[in-house]
Amino acid sequence: MITGFSHVSIVVPDIEAAARQIETKYGLTVGERKTNAEQGVRLAYVELGGARIELMEPSRPDSPVAKFLERNPRGGIHHFCLSVDNVDATAKALACNGVRVLGDGKPQHNVEGERIAFIHPGDFLGALVEIEEHGPKG
Amino acid sequence: MITGFSHVSIVVPDIEAAARQIETKYGLTVGERKTNAEQGVRLAYVELGGARIELMEPSRPDSPVAKFLERNPRGGIHHFCLSVDNVDATAKALACNGVRVLGDGKPQHNVEGERIAFIHPGDFLGALVEIEEHGPKG
Repeated sequence: MITGFSHVSIVVPDIEAAARQIETKYGLTVGERKTNAEQGVRLAYVELGGARIELMEPSRPDSPVAKFLERNPRGGIHHFCLSVDNVDATAKALACNGVRVLGDGKPQHNVEGERIAFIHPGDFLGALVEIEEHGPKG
Repeated sequence: MITGFSHVSIVVPDIEAAARQIETKYGLTVGERKTNAEQGVRLAYVELGGARIELMEPSRPDSPVAKFLERNPRGGIHHFCLSVDNVDATAKALACNGVRVLGDGKPQHNVEGERIAFIHPGDFLGALVEIEEHGPKG
């Protein structure tokens, strides 16, 4: 079950330059840089009340987000993420409704170790949507 | 001053079809359809705790979002929106930091009559970002 909104995610070519820009021009605070080896991204969050902006750069050449940067060299909005109570149960329910959940069925995790999955953009109005297992306050 | 996250916005070719898909496949509730004549969009919101998903279709052929649909016929993520305490003061402070605020300087409004402005994607990591004048719970 979808329980809330988690974050919007921006892929950037250089997370340090991105963080500097966001902090100096917008007065926002970019959190600790972390690496999600499973997903092939280096990332950081801007906390904004109940939601967050995620900044991601590829952490290896074959990162899934490297192709996005080839198409969008200066970066751009990559996906947004909804909170769910249970990724497996939600993915199964969505599949029953004809929604394609991406991946080979192997569990995927965010940098906090929480279960995640991605929905095919063709099944969500052209938007790449992540689902993440946690409460609405994520 | 940026005070919170407001919404992520998806442009769709047909808001009724989009709403049906989101409601039947995802169990989400799409609110009342409204038209923002100033912005040239017909829109509706999905409320998700503190944040919202906005669905927009062009309400006239010269709608600013019509071009986006030409490039992305099935729809897609168009922008996200941050809450600010005061659009004019924030836009002025951003301009002092070298951030381009779009438009001809005429006040713009969302469908609730709240003041809005848009930031040039080149000055926010490649993302089109709206700022909207209201508190963080918007």
